[in-house]
Amino acid sequence: MTNPRVAVLGGGQLGRMLALAGMPLGVRFQFLDPTPDATAGGVGPLIVGDLGDPAAVAAGVRGATVVTYEWEGVPADGARAAAAEAPVRPDPRALDVAQDRLVEKQTFGRLGIETADWAPVDDAATLDTAIDAIKVPAVLKTRRGGYDGKGQRVLWTTADRTGARDAVGGVPAILEALVPFDRELSILAARGVNGSTRCWPLVENRHVEGILRVSRAPAPGRTAELQASAEELAARLLDELDYVGVLAVELFQHDGRLLANELAPRVHNSGHWTIEGSATSQFEQHVRAILGWPLGSTEMRGIAGMVNCIGGLPDRDAVLAIEGAHLHDYEKEPRPGRKVGHVTVVAATPEQRDERVATVEALLPS
Amino acid sequence: MTNPRVAVLGGGQLGRMLALAGMPLGVRFQFLDPTPDATAGGVGPLIVGDLGDPAAVAAGVRGATVVTYEWEGVPADGARAAAAEAPVRPDPRALDVAQDRLVEKQTFGRLGIETADWAPVDDAATLDTAIDAIKVPAVLKTRRGGYDGKGQRVLWTTADRTGARDAVGGVPAILEALVPFDRELSILAARGVNGSTRCWPLVENRHVEGILRVSRAPAPGRTAELQASAEELAARLLDELDYVGVLAVELFQHDGRLLANELAPRVHNSGHWTIEGSATSQFEQHVRAILGWPLGSTEMRGIAGMVNCIGGLPDRDAVLAIEGAHLHDYEKEPRPGRKVGHVTVVAATPEQRDERVATVEALLPS
Repeated sequence: MTNPRVAVLGGGQLGRMLALAGMPLGVRFQFLDPTPDATAGGVGPLIVGDLGDPAAVAAGVRGATVVTYEWEGVPADGARAAAAEAPVRPDPRALDVAQDRLVEKQTFGRLGIETADWAPVDDAATLDTAIDAIKVPAVLKTRRGGYDGKGQRVLWTTADRTGARDAVGGVPAILEALVPFDRELSILAARGVNGSTRCWPLVENRHVEGILRVSRAPAPGRTAELQASAEELAARLLDELDYVGVLAVELFQHDGRLLANELAPRVHNSGHWTIEGSATSQFEQHVRAILGWPLGSTEMRGIAGMVNCIGGLPDRDAVLAIEGAHLHDYEKEPRPGRKVGHVTVVAATPEQRDERVATVEALLPS
Repeated sequence: MTNPRVAVLGGGQLGRMLALAGMPLGVRFQFLDPTPDATAGGVGPLIVGDLGDPAAVAAGVRGATVVTYEWEGVPADGARAAAAEAPVRPDPRALDVAQDRLVEKQTFGRLGIETADWAPVDDAATLDTAIDAIKVPAVLKTRRGGYDGKGQRVLWTTADRTGARDAVGGVPAILEALVPFDRELSILAARGVNGSTRCWPLVENRHVEGILRVSRAPAPGRTAELQASAEELAARLLDELDYVGVLAVELFQHDGRLLANELAPRVHNSGHWTIEGSATSQFEQHVRAILGWPLGSTEMRGIAGMVNCIGGLPDRDAVLAIEGAHLHDYEKEPRPGRKVGHVTVVAATPEQRDERVATVEALLPS
């Protein structure tokens, strides 16, 4: 049995956690990242180079059994260049979709996946048309480059159109109805090389200023019907993209319906709880999938919650003293707004989970 | 918050798994091992050198926050030399006990921990005396250097005394009554710098030719009384040795009583199931303990079993296709009798665990 080698485009905490999940299985990892101090460098060889530079990509993926990416911003051309060395999974087509909100919304629409109403905005005239069609409140979002709430502008009144395009950089955008959703959810799904799929239980997510703060799994009050409908929409996307690996779809729940917000063609922050809370973590599942190995059980091991550590870590001893708490320190330099770690809690009941989540949140540096 | 660095004396799979458990917590690892291809070298810097050579030890532990060992054969003097750089945990006194069966038995005796009857054997005359006192069947075991069934000779009849000492190398030994035990168990326990302790549920172990094959946790039919009695004897040892870290005690169950067989002052093969089967794995617990951090919950996450892969790995895809199975590939060159990996299964019931264990065992290369 030979030990396979995975090359990861991107060397952030997601790459780091992919390696930590794959190494017990005898999988080796290497990373390509533009930053010499990328955190994944602590767990495997790091090649420093631009993800869009074919020469850097060639060096970064040399010797790999398979190539994957841990960031949806990886230039699709860079990912395609890697295919000269080894299969790239998921197929970079997923990047084309994820990197352009217009294409993403069109894909959802073509597959009959419901979204908030939206319209393309390329200039002042199309913004006016969009506002007439979508009404306010609505959000203007750049087609490309936005993440963690960046590149967005809310229009509360029609008067807010003034300066809105400038505020998001004057680039092509879409206007999206601001849905008065009940809550944010996500579904994490995996698809193997043979087309088999597995989903984890729906996750409830709480964002503040566009950044994920807390996830709860399973999502409180999740019905079998809601779960089935989320799995069904995920399966349509997986099949459409001939996807191999873990895919996350962010959803709004609104009047008992699920609206797709966006997809992430990679392991996802709202799935970090799976490391301790599921029989197979999203990271191990992604590794299994891209290597063509059988997918693992997504059964839960208790009731789980995840608290992000933004800008700094909580007191370590205080976190470790909480029963069922698991600290993940990404070894990243603390900076305002930066994800530097997370804490998972596993509990016997939803109430106990919520208590433990609250205890962890109270420990976060303010 | 600074990221601590653990230096591990020994670079085998136990060191490797310590690192894989500690890295998510932001802990860094380095290893000292005489073998350039030691498996832990795949997960952290490996310094190649003799564990008993003070210069090699000094190089191997340079910059460490704390030093630990993953092998009870580490020369105690080597471990003591490391103390010039950083605290050595557990205290090397545990090595003195574990490395000499005579001292070990005396320690058990002094603490009122029951063992099989035994007597020291230094020469032909003391062997005769020992046989008279202990009777046959009995096992002659070298005081030092035996592991995985090596350095032992069973005396089924008194006539077997001829050549017995030569068979174990003519070195100082002990003669131990061969207990017709019902089964082999082990208790894994951890003690923190502040003296707090935690135990995992009793494990049932099956050995073949002196090598562990299968562990089941909790041990089938374990009573609260049996668990309490195991925890109590572990606590006596932990306190006696002012122990910091994870300690394993191998036990025989005989007529409802527990007899101590031997101790291992380190993480232990019979605790590998804790990686997936416990809220805190033995590896994370050891790291927490030696760094002076709070100990974690030892609650089980399901019913667990562990199957060792001796001499070679089973078919990977077949193992991964078993629900709740977790493959651990140590990336070691297969050799007859060599532990090259293990498979943990986690299940909802003991019956399901036993089925999954049997399925994995059937996949082992013969």
